[in-house]
Amino acid sequence: MATIALDAMGGDHGAAPAVRAAARISLERKAAVVVVGDQHQIESALRRTRYDAAFLSIVHTDQVVDMAESPRKALDAKPEASILVGARLVADGRADALVSAGNTGASILACARTFERLPGVNRTALAAVYPTERRRGSNDDPFALMLDVGATLDADADTLVAFAHMGAAYAARISKNPRPRVALLSNGEEPFKGSPAIVEAHRRLAADTHLNFVGNVEGVDLPRGKADVVVTDGFTGNVVLKMLEGISETVVDLARYAYRSKLVWRIGLGLLRGGIVQLKQLTDWKQYGGAPILGFDHLFIKAHGRSNDRALGNAIKVAHRAVESDLCREMGERLATALGDAD
Amino acid sequence: MATIALDAMGGDHGAAPAVRAAARISLERKAAVVVVGDQHQIESALRRTRYDAAFLSIVHTDQVVDMAESPRKALDAKPEASILVGARLVADGRADALVSAGNTGASILACARTFERLPGVNRTALAAVYPTERRRGSNDDPFALMLDVGATLDADADTLVAFAHMGAAYAARISKNPRPRVALLSNGEEPFKGSPAIVEAHRRLAADTHLNFVGNVEGVDLPRGKADVVVTDGFTGNVVLKMLEGISETVVDLARYAYRSKLVWRIGLGLLRGGIVQLKQLTDWKQYGGAPILGFDHLFIKAHGRSNDRALGNAIKVAHRAVESDLCREMGERLATALGDAD
Repeated sequence: MATIALDAMGGDHGAAPAVRAAARISLERKAAVVVVGDQHQIESALRRTRYDAAFLSIVHTDQVVDMAESPRKALDAKPEASILVGARLVADGRADALVSAGNTGASILACARTFERLPGVNRTALAAVYPTERRRGSNDDPFALMLDVGATLDADADTLVAFAHMGAAYAARISKNPRPRVALLSNGEEPFKGSPAIVEAHRRLAADTHLNFVGNVEGVDLPRGKADVVVTDGFTGNVVLKMLEGISETVVDLARYAYRSKLVWRIGLGLLRGGIVQLKQLTDWKQYGGAPILGFDHLFIKAHGRSNDRALGNAIKVAHRAVESDLCREMGERLATALGDAD
Repeated sequence: MATIALDAMGGDHGAAPAVRAAARISLERKAAVVVVGDQHQIESALRRTRYDAAFLSIVHTDQVVDMAESPRKALDAKPEASILVGARLVADGRADALVSAGNTGASILACARTFERLPGVNRTALAAVYPTERRRGSNDDPFALMLDVGATLDADADTLVAFAHMGAAYAARISKNPRPRVALLSNGEEPFKGSPAIVEAHRRLAADTHLNFVGNVEGVDLPRGKADVVVTDGFTGNVVLKMLEGISETVVDLARYAYRSKLVWRIGLGLLRGGIVQLKQLTDWKQYGGAPILGFDHLFIKAHGRSNDRALGNAIKVAHRAVESDLCREMGERLATALGDAD
C-alpha cells in the first residue's frame, strides 16, 4: 500500500486543513498518510475529527518554513523544517510521495537536496492543469497540462524535450490519456517560429516516434485545448497560468456588476445559474489536486497555499495515483529511451 | 494638414475596404489620404462610393506582397511593392504616417529599410491594445497597451527600457492618459523576479523620474488593468495577446452552447443581451484601430489582415492623431532624456 508524506505546516491556514484531509483519506483505507509537523497542533486537530489510526501516523518536528522566507536561507537555518523531514521520509523509503501547501521555492529546493534527478533531467518542471473547451482521455477530462509554470524560467532545447516526455507520461498515467497530444508553445505554428531553443526542440520532438507531437501551438490554441500537454519555459508558463486566473476573476467581477446593474440582467443571470455553477467549478480548477513537480525520482505535489481540506485531499489522491501507477519509473524509462534514440 | 499613406493592396479582402475607408475619411476633410496600389482597382472601387477628391489621391503601383510570402524575398523581388512605395512617400515627406493591413513581417521590414530609427532604439516594437476591467485617461478608456507583441522576440534591458518610454509616450498622446502607469511583465512582483534583462530594466526604470513606473505586474494583473502600459518581450507578448483572442472566442462558444442546450438558458441569455453586446464590443477589440510599430521616426499602423473599412478608418484616425500630436518627436525627446540621464 502506498504511503503519502504530508507536510502539515506550510499552508496559509495552519495544520488544520492538512489534518482533516489526512483524516478523511485514512477513512477510505486505500493509502496511508504520514502527517509531518507540530505533534501538539496535529493531535489537537485530530481530536476534532474522525480518522483511522491504522492509516494515519504523525512525525513530529517544530521547525517550519514560512511563506515569505527566502528558500535557501530558511532550509539552511532549519534542517528539521517539516518540508525537509517529509522529503527525507520519501527518500528513505518510509513514504512514497510528498504533498505540501507550503512555500513553493523552499519545497522544490527541499526536493532537489533530498531526491535524485531522473536520468537526463537537468532541470525540473512545475506542471499545472488548466481548463479547456475540449475533453480528453478516458476520464473525459476538460483539463490540459502545462509545464513548466515557474520552476525553470529559461529552458534550453534539452530541457524542453525532457519536459515533453515527462508531461506525456503524467497525462498518460494520471489523466488516463494514453496518447496525449504534446505541443510546444510558440509565437507561430511554423517549425521555424520561436527562440533557437524552441526551434531545436521542435526538430527533435518531430523526429521522436515515442511521442504524439502535434507541433507548435499559439496562445489562441490554449483555451481551445488543441494540445493535451503544453511545453514551455517557466517564465511564459507562469505568466500564462496566472493570466488564466486573472480572467476567471474578471468574469466573476463582470457577473457581479451585471447582477447589481439591472433587474432584467439579474433575472437573466438567475436563469443561467445552472450553467454558471458548472462554469465556476471548471474555472475554479486550482482546487483540483495541486501541481506536480516532475523530474525527480519521487513525486512531489505542491498544493496551493490557500488549499482547504478538499484540495489537499485531492492532492493526496493524485500522489496516490502516481505511486500506484509507478509514474516516476515510467518517466525515467521514457527519458532513457528518448535519450538513447537521440544518441 | 496631415497626410496618411494607405497601402490598399495587402489585406485579405483586396483594395475595396481600404478605398471605402479612405473615401469616408476624405469626406470628414480633416486629413488627406494617399491610396497606394493598383490604380484600376482603386478607381473601380471609388466609382461605387462618395468621396472628396481634394482629400484623396492615388499613387499607382502594380506590385504587392502577399500574406504568405517571405518578407525579405518579397521585398527584394518587388521594389515597387505597395508597402514600400507607401513607406517611401512618408520618408520623402509626401505623407506623414503609413497604414497597411498587409503582411506584418514585410511591413515592418519595409519600414526598417525606409525610415530612420529613433535615437537609442536598437529594436522596434509592435504595440497592441487589449481590454481590461479598469478605465483610464480622459477618454475613460478600458484598453491597456502592451508592447512588444511580436516584432522583437528576445528583448535585452536597453530594449525594454526604450519600449517603456515609447509606450508611455503613445499612451499619453493617443489614449490621452498624461501619466500612464508603466509596468514590466514578470513572474512575480518583486524586483528580483524574471530574467536578468527584466531585473536590470526594473532597476533602471525604478530610478527614472520621467516615468510613472509601477514595478512588475504578473499575468493575473493583465485583465485587471493594473498597468496602462505593459512592457514585455515579443515572444511573451505574442503568446499573451493571442491567448486573449482565444478566450474571447471560447466565451462566444460557451454562450452558443448554452443557447442551444436549454430553453431556460436561452431565455436567460436573451435577458442579458444588452450586457452581452457591450461585452462583445469590448472583446472585439481587434477592430480598434490597429497596432502601431514604435521605434521609427515615422509612425506605421498595422491593421489586422481581416480589417473591414471601419477598422481601416479607425487605423487612419489613430495615425492622424499621432501626426497631429507629434508622437514620434515626443518619443524621440523622451528617449534622448532617458538615455542622457542614464549616462
